[in-house]
Amino acid sequence: MKWPEKITIKEVGPRDGLQNEKTFISTEDKIAWINQLSESGLKHIEITSFVHPKWIPALSDAAAVAAGITKVPGVTYTALVPNRHGLERAFQADIDEAAVFMSASETHNRKNINKTIDETFPVLRDLIRETLSVGKASRGYVSTVFGCPYEGNVDIDSVIRVSETLFDMGIAELSLGDTIGVANPKQVQEVLDVLLKRFPADKIAMHFHDTRGTALANILVSLDMGITIFDSSLGGLGGCPYAPGAAGNVATNDLLYMLHGMGIHTGVDQEKLLHASCFIQEKIGKTLPSKSFQAASAQLGGKHEKTV
Amino acid sequence: MKWPEKITIKEVGPRDGLQNEKTFISTEDKIAWINQLSESGLKHIEITSFVHPKWIPALSDAAAVAAGITKVPGVTYTALVPNRHGLERAFQADIDEAAVFMSASETHNRKNINKTIDETFPVLRDLIRETLSVGKASRGYVSTVFGCPYEGNVDIDSVIRVSETLFDMGIAELSLGDTIGVANPKQVQEVLDVLLKRFPADKIAMHFHDTRGTALANILVSLDMGITIFDSSLGGLGGCPYAPGAAGNVATNDLLYMLHGMGIHTGVDQEKLLHASCFIQEKIGKTLPSKSFQAASAQLGGKHEKTV
Repeated sequence: MKWPEKITIKEVGPRDGLQNEKTFISTEDKIAWINQLSESGLKHIEITSFVHPKWIPALSDAAAVAAGITKVPGVTYTALVPNRHGLERAFQADIDEAAVFMSASETHNRKNINKTIDETFPVLRDLIRETLSVGKASRGYVSTVFGCPYEGNVDIDSVIRVSETLFDMGIAELSLGDTIGVANPKQVQEVLDVLLKRFPADKIAMHFHDTRGTALANILVSLDMGITIFDSSLGGLGGCPYAPGAAGNVATNDLLYMLHGMGIHTGVDQEKLLHASCFIQEKIGKTLPSKSFQAASAQLGGKHEKTV
Repeated sequence: MKWPEKITIKEVGPRDGLQNEKTFISTEDKIAWINQLSESGLKHIEITSFVHPKWIPALSDAAAVAAGITKVPGVTYTALVPNRHGLERAFQADIDEAAVFMSASETHNRKNINKTIDETFPVLRDLIRETLSVGKASRGYVSTVFGCPYEGNVDIDSVIRVSETLFDMGIAELSLGDTIGVANPKQVQEVLDVLLKRFPADKIAMHFHDTRGTALANILVSLDMGITIFDSSLGGLGGCPYAPGAAGNVATNDLLYMLHGMGIHTGVDQEKLLHASCFIQEKIGKTLPSKSFQAASAQLGGKHEKTV
C-alpha cells in the first residue's frame, strides 16, 4: 500500500454533526466551538446550513453563527445551501464557499429534497452559477454513492452522471458521500477506479459516515487510490447508537490518530481538537462516539491499561 | 490493494471479551452463548481462561463452562492457560488447544504475569511441551506488539525474539496483539514486513483491540500483507467507553461486515451471530460497542435513514 505525504481535512461537525443532534447548541456555544476549530490548524470548516429552519431546527441560527465567528485568515468557511433563498442568506452572511447537494439514487434524492434527480439539476446549476458570479467557490455533495437506504445498491452510472453534471456546472470539488455508512474497502476501490478515470483525484473528497465502523478502512483504501481530501466530524458528532440513520461522519479525532500515526501531515493540532471535543461533548451532554477521543479522555484521567 | 479469497476468524469473546466485563455472566448463560457461537459456522472459539479465579473472577467457572458446552465437530475449542496448574485443569476439561501468552515489552510482561520475559520463557516451554505431549495444539499470544502502556514504543527486536522463541518451543500459531489498540496501518505494514520474512503468513494471526477505532484499517493492511487469520470478539465485547484499558477486540460483527462486503469467505453466518450478539448484550446489560451490530439492531426495528 502507498499513501500520500499530506492530506486535507474538511471539518463538517458544525453542520453535518450538529444537524443530527437533538440537543440545540446555543448560538454562543456554536460560535465559541467554531472559533476553537479555527485555531486548531483546520483550513476548511463547514459551519452551518442555510436550509429552512423548519427542516433542521438545530441550525436555525445559521446567519447569527456565520456573523458571530472570528474568521481566521487562510481558513475557508463553508455552508450548505439548498436553494436560492438559502444562497442569498449565505451571501449576506459572507460565507466563503457554498456547498450544494443531491443524491445519486432517485428515491433518496426525492425523499431528501423533494425533487427527482433531473428536477434537481437546474436548481443546482442556478446556485453554482450565482456562487461563481460573486467570486465564491462551490462544492458539490453527492449522497448515497455507496448505497441507498431505500433502493439498496446504487448504479455507478448514476454516480458518474450526477458527478459529471456537477463538475460541468462549475463545482471546484466533489464530495462523494457514503451517507448511510455501508461502504466496504473493495467497493470504494471499485468506485474510485471508475471515477478517477474521469475526474482528477485532487478534485474528489470522500465523505464516509461510520455507521458500521468501516470508515477508516475505507479512507485507507481511498488514500491508496490517491485521494487526499476527507470530510470528518469532530468527535464523530452526529452519531446515535440506536439510530443508524443518524450515525455520524468518521470522527476527525480517529482520522487524525490514524493519519498522524502513519506520518501523514494534516497541519491540525490534535491537542487543540481534543479540547474542542471536550467542549462540544459537554454542550451536547452525551459521550461523543469517537473511540480515540474516548481513549484520550480516559488517559487524561491517568489510567493505565492492563490486559492480555 | 489485494486481499485473500477466504480468511479464518478466531472468536475470543468468551475469553478476552468476558474477562474485561464487570458483570458476571452465569455459567448457564456462558454455555448457551458458546453453543450459539458453535452453531454459527465459527471454527475456532476461545471459550475461557484457566487463570486463578482471584485474577479473573469473571471466568472463575472455566471448568464448568468447558464441561457444559456442546462441542460441534470441526470446531476447535481453545482456552488460555497461564501455568502448569491451569494447563492441568484445561486438560481435565478436555480443551482442544491451549493458548499461552506473554508480552513483547518487559514492563507489561512483569505487570501482567509477574515475571521478566526471560523468566517467562521456561514456563511457557514447559506448558507447550506438555500440551504437545498429549497430542493437543498450542497457540502463542504476544501482547503489546505495537505499543506498551508503560514503555510506549516496543522494539521490533523484542517482538522477533519472543516470536522466534515461541515458534521454537512448538506453537502452531502466533497471535500478534495490539493489546492497547494503538497500532496504525503503516506500523502494521512495517512490523509484518519484518516478521513475514521470518515466519510464514499462515502461522500468524492478528489480534487488534479497537481502542482508537483503527482495528479494521489495520486488518485491511494485514490482508494486503497476506495475513488470513484474525482474532475478534462478538459485539466488540470487553470494551468500556471510559476505560481504554478495557477496550475490546475488534468486533466480529464489524469484521464480518467488512469481509463479506468485500466478497471474502469466512464460513460464518452473520444472522446467527446477530442473534448471539443480542443474547449476550441482554445478559451483559449494556449496549455492545460494535457499530455494525448497533446498526443491524436498529434496522431490526425497521428504521430508515435520512441524512445528506
